[in-house]
Amino acid sequence: MYPNPIQKLVEYFMRLPGIGPRQASRFVYTLLDEDIKTIEGFADALGELARTVARCAECFRGIEKKNSNSVCDQCAGNTITAILVVEKDQDLETISKTGLWQDAYHVLGGTITLLNEKTRVTDRIRALYDRLARRTKTAEKPIEIVLATSATTEGDATALYIERVLEPFVKEKKITLTRLGRGISTGTEMEFADPQTLKNALKNRK
Amino acid sequence: MYPNPIQKLVEYFMRLPGIGPRQASRFVYTLLDEDIKTIEGFADALGELARTVARCAECFRGIEKKNSNSVCDQCAGNTITAILVVEKDQDLETISKTGLWQDAYHVLGGTITLLNEKTRVTDRIRALYDRLARRTKTAEKPIEIVLATSATTEGDATALYIERVLEPFVKEKKITLTRLGRGISTGTEMEFADPQTLKNALKNRK
Amino acid sequence: MYPNPIQKLVEYFMRLPGIGPRQASRFVYTLLDEDIKTIEGFADALGELARTVARCAECFRGIEKKNSNSVCDQCAGNTITAILVVEKDQDLETISKTGLWQDAYHVLGGTITLLNEKTRVTDRIRALYDRLARRTKTAEKPIEIVLATSATTEGDATALYIERVLEPFVKEKKITLTRLGRGISTGTEMEFADPQTLKNALKNRK
Amino acid sequence: MYPNPIQKLVEYFMRLPGIGPRQASRFVYTLLDEDIKTIEGFADALGELARTVARCAECFRGIEKKNSNSVCDQCAGNTITAILVVEKDQDLETISKTGLWQDAYHVLGGTITLLNEKTRVTDRIRALYDRLARRTKTAEKPIEIVLATSATTEGDATALYIERVLEPFVKEKKITLTRLGRGISTGTEMEFADPQTLKNALKNRK
Repeated sequence: MYPNPIQKLVEYFMRLPGIGPRQASRFVYTLLDEDIKTIEGFADALGELARTVARCAECFRGIEKKNSNSVCDQCAGNTITAILVVEKDQDLETISKTGLWQDAYHVLGGTITLLNEKTRVTDRIRALYDRLARRTKTAEKPIEIVLATSATTEGDATALYIERVLEPFVKEKKITLTRLGRGISTGTEMEFADPQTLKNALKNRK
Repeated sequence: MYPNPIQKLVEYFMRLPGIGPRQASRFVYTLLDEDIKTIEGFADALGELARTVARCAECFRGIEKKNSNSVCDQCAGNTITAILVVEKDQDLETISKTGLWQDAYHVLGGTITLLNEKTRVTDRIRALYDRLARRTKTAEKPIEIVLATSATTEGDATALYIERVLEPFVKEKKITLTRLGRGISTGTEMEFADPQTLKNALKNRK
Repeated sequence: MYPNPIQKLVEYFMRLPGIGPRQASRFVYTLLDEDIKTIEGFADALGELARTVARCAECFRGIEKKNSNSVCDQCAGNTITAILVVEKDQDLETISKTGLWQDAYHVLGGTITLLNEKTRVTDRIRALYDRLARRTKTAEKPIEIVLATSATTEGDATALYIERVLEPFVKEKKITLTRLGRGISTGTEMEFADPQTLKNALKNRK
Repeated sequence: MYPNPIQKLVEYFMRLPGIGPRQASRFVYTLLDEDIKTIEGFADALGELARTVARCAECFRGIEKKNSNSVCDQCAGNTITAILVVEKDQDLETISKTGLWQDAYHVLGGTITLLNEKTRVTDRIRALYDRLARRTKTAEKPIEIVLATSATTEGDATALYIERVLEPFVKEKKITLTRLGRGISTGTEMEFADPQTLKNALKNRK
């Protein structure tokens, strides 16, 4: 029904999360009314992403490829004393913007599935294990692993899974495992707070 | 347009929070298809509320009037060691259902307004002051006041206001003032967590 | 957990359409802060509804009971030339407010269920049949029955069901059956219009 | 904060309608986990759109550029008997998919603004005027112009504006102007129908 190049582009937009056929075609028609330079600039930016951005081989954040180095500046450094484990790139950004965390990260790329099948996330948890095996050899004191997964069923299941995988390091006192503090968060109305949150909020009162 | 008794009842339903004319008339027509006994039972339940329920003169929760006593069983007791200050009756219920709090409450009936005018809420904060003046005279150790207002702008403003009002008691070490612990709450996705919540969540990690 | 009279009233409010336990208890606590006169006025209005309002025995709209008469003024009149069949009391109100329809109504009290079981609605469709059997005897020309059910699956199914039930009258030319005109309605954006609506909108263009 | 190429691409995605910074960055990170071929394919599809798709010089729909021809097959034909005037490319698609309209279109590219300033839309209405001036010279009978703008305030204002602009052609009987039929549309519940829609639905009943 559409001209072919429109249809092809609609299909690319539909691969993006949350984009259905209607919104994808709205995108394409919006672009059609932009001048050609803009569309070409968009295409170039995509090409540049493909050529120059990769994931750090150690912490999996997105980095600009420089020379032949495949790890980010932070992971290239010698010492890491703490690692914040997050689900998504966006979580890393949210926390990074606050300036509250200066130490290393580990990006899981999502949460584990209920089927416990091998996925990108379990691969990256395995990579976290290997990373710690390597790093703890030379560390002077236990590395702190902060599990900063979301306070959702999936996030909690993922944190539990990681706790089990990393248990050997905890036993050997090579790492300490912590989880983010729970309580009422900005915007919470008491009437709608769940028992678990209330319990933590009362316990951590001060 | 409607028969008069329908119109009158529609207006009563519209006094309830969140109910507009459309929903109010839906209520009335639903009742019209109930049998007369049900409608009369509803009317009786309202009458009974008016006759037999009142607010405790000390903590302002809803109680059944018994004899001439105007305070709830808890406030009638001699000793109170801690008071949980909540905005609404529903907050009291939410917490009370968890069984996490066995001590006394103080129901504010809402939050203070930005204009700082005299309202039901400021009256009840004044009553809290008087309550403490009376109670701390005989208390053996400082009474803990837990400010359990919502983590909203209005809730925070109300907590701050109460802190200022109760400051004299704190200085004389007759009370201690605490606030609910903050952190990520059940359901929070890290990507959408605000800086203040993240800060508390990182600080309270364990 | 609540005082008994509160619990009882919460349960009455929960019988109203769309009202869950949370909102029901919000209603009761709102009432508790009203003065006693208001609550008693509410109870009286309910009592008055039970005593003085009923449904017209012929068209089923809500009417004030007067003397022993059980039909509305309109149905008490001798001649009816057209009947607008609506699902709900609120539909009657919506149309009645526009002043576009001066003739008689028939309120179904809902839509037929998919199970085609005997319900209030099928009873009232049967009553419509009887009403027509009686009215067409003396009518000088065919009575027009306008099926004004909603343009939803349920509304359409109900209209179809009524068409089948009233078919004998149509064959004998005692009534004419019409349905509301279809097309784009106020607020419709063309992008989201369904094929059936577009078809009618194009066919009825002018 | 992000690597530069990510930031640049985020900004391109943010030019798309309804896309904020959060969703734009989600798009980029999703792409980062696709293989390079896919990203390059996406870039190529954008380049192809820029090179090979344009708007028909007469009706403004999106078409593949062929040779030097700048009008679509339909506009290249000799005879046009009716033109359906739509706001957006998506409206054309919605209608075109139904197969209900086989004749010509005119895509406005939006609605007129309240300020009545010169915009793409007013340019295309001017182009419609010119198109008719040219086409009606050779037409054997009046061309029908169907104004198929949305049933919204903006759509109605745009239709009114076009009616004024095309009035001379109507007076000379060179065109006829029609609008889509109004009535209840699929999904409309009677309770929520507006008076204008009810009026049309009653008038067009059958």
